[in-house]
Amino acid sequence: MTAHFETGSVITSSQPLRGLVGDIGGTNARFAIAERVAGKTTLANFKSLECEDYKDVYDALTGYFAMIGGKPELDFTVVAVAGPVKDGAIQFTNLDWLVREDLLGQTTGARKTRLINDYAALAFALPHLGDADTKTIGAVKTGFGNVHAVMGAGTGFGASVLVGGEFGPYCLSTESGHISFAPVNDYESEILRVLRKKYGRVTVEMLLSGPGLVNLYHAISAIRGEPAHDFTPAQITHLDGEDATGSRYTVEAFLDIMASVCGDLSLAHGATSGMFIAGGIAPRLIKHIDELRFRARMEAKAPLAHIVAATPSRIIIHPYAALLGSANALTDVQITA
Amino acid sequence: MTAHFETGSVITSSQPLRGLVGDIGGTNARFAIAERVAGKTTLANFKSLECEDYKDVYDALTGYFAMIGGKPELDFTVVAVAGPVKDGAIQFTNLDWLVREDLLGQTTGARKTRLINDYAALAFALPHLGDADTKTIGAVKTGFGNVHAVMGAGTGFGASVLVGGEFGPYCLSTESGHISFAPVNDYESEILRVLRKKYGRVTVEMLLSGPGLVNLYHAISAIRGEPAHDFTPAQITHLDGEDATGSRYTVEAFLDIMASVCGDLSLAHGATSGMFIAGGIAPRLIKHIDELRFRARMEAKAPLAHIVAATPSRIIIHPYAALLGSANALTDVQITA
Repeated sequence: MTAHFETGSVITSSQPLRGLVGDIGGTNARFAIAERVAGKTTLANFKSLECEDYKDVYDALTGYFAMIGGKPELDFTVVAVAGPVKDGAIQFTNLDWLVREDLLGQTTGARKTRLINDYAALAFALPHLGDADTKTIGAVKTGFGNVHAVMGAGTGFGASVLVGGEFGPYCLSTESGHISFAPVNDYESEILRVLRKKYGRVTVEMLLSGPGLVNLYHAISAIRGEPAHDFTPAQITHLDGEDATGSRYTVEAFLDIMASVCGDLSLAHGATSGMFIAGGIAPRLIKHIDELRFRARMEAKAPLAHIVAATPSRIIIHPYAALLGSANALTDVQITA
Repeated sequence: MTAHFETGSVITSSQPLRGLVGDIGGTNARFAIAERVAGKTTLANFKSLECEDYKDVYDALTGYFAMIGGKPELDFTVVAVAGPVKDGAIQFTNLDWLVREDLLGQTTGARKTRLINDYAALAFALPHLGDADTKTIGAVKTGFGNVHAVMGAGTGFGASVLVGGEFGPYCLSTESGHISFAPVNDYESEILRVLRKKYGRVTVEMLLSGPGLVNLYHAISAIRGEPAHDFTPAQITHLDGEDATGSRYTVEAFLDIMASVCGDLSLAHGATSGMFIAGGIAPRLIKHIDELRFRARMEAKAPLAHIVAATPSRIIIHPYAALLGSANALTDVQITA
């Protein structure tokens, strides 16, 4: 499988730069060759490899280069990983791979190599996403200022901020998924009460994630006095069949809470330029989103409702946003200096 | 009144630079002359003027220069204001002053002039605060990474983030005071319920501010079935006399919630280098802070308790932190380019 994308850019490159970009999760390692020319980023030679087929990331990269007809001349390497990067390395938890920035650089031969968190990569993608790369929720399309943020529900909940301005862009990695859950009505306070009894602490991630869908489903079933099935997150979001009533309540509460959190994080991250929603769950739920209801929940932030109302909200549907961001994580100066 | 301060700096200046720095609230305009030499910042010629004695800020500045024996040669002007700066200007709400960046520059004759928000100024002060400028809460003195944040309760609740790194420092202004309140136990859920009935929405600022103390006091009195007096915030924090029982409960809840929010914002702002607490209320409450209790509340952020436990928390006691920050809001390059 080979894909080819072209997306607008806000940064003007003074010279063409070519990089190897990667996005490694627990199951798949995706690679592509990025070309940055005159402010435009092109991704080519996209391949998705099964991690378990390779003994380590360097082996996978060697396999990738063989697939695309040999290793090209590379100016940079940026690989995004689903987990914390510490001292230029990540040890995956559910995969026997230790990925090191220095060894990545040796394998690719690029003059500059960087290992980054996947939500940092998503942040760097934001200014490069075109209209077709996102689904806008609500009427507002253009924000103000120079701060974008991305949040997303998947296996966990991630969030990061892209700060622009004189010396930007700069990515601020956050742990916003681990802040405490703030219920905004009596129903959500009851959900909090039920989950607090079970878990003690209730975070945003404990509601807005795959496991969060299951938590929500069980709490809501308990509150309604209805039997709860042993559903997976995918079964809950599927919303089909005669058992779907509880799932429907769950998806509605999930989307309401996601909209509330989207508004809160737009304030906490100062992200007036736009809130972007990534992660595996939101794209699956797009057809269930009532845009007016989502924006009403997001904007219910008096006395700053007018600020949030002027901030766009978008779900990222670009299939390789983390690769696009990896391609733009380093500035020209960082690569060539 | 003239004061003289010297504080360590993390940024090394290549040349001496002199600036006029200011901090303007609704009542007072404070000015000083800042000298940045070899990475150290010195504030001299400090004066606090009553705003109502002057027809505008330019008139006040002329008065200030007269007080200190004439206007010195200035490389930069940075004035911090308690409110939003829009298009290089601020119109104060409770003061008939329109402060414009361009006219400030004309008055001071500096080659570079900047008008900034006071919490942005506080952010720029953070790396320059010495041990004597803060009161550390808890045992941990040194964090990690290069992101500091400041939050504070006063008339309202402010928060901002100082992002360091390759191109830093960069200040991210946030509206974290306006995110929804997240109760972490049944008592706080009850406080939320009482206040939600009255106000609809309950934000962090509606608890952590002067008016927030009054809100908390009335909610707690209602929950306890005790009569509430018509106390001001200052009367509540005074904690003296036979009516002080309700005030004591209020101050305890206020400090618990402040500690919780401090932990949440350290996560939401990625501020592993340190959380700083500014604003008028915290310094007044220092003698009532149980450090073990404060840190326990702040660190109760499982599964990331270890991250927050490694993040220092400090109350700023430097009397002119906003002036110190104003003195360091511009980099050498920004001033001399």
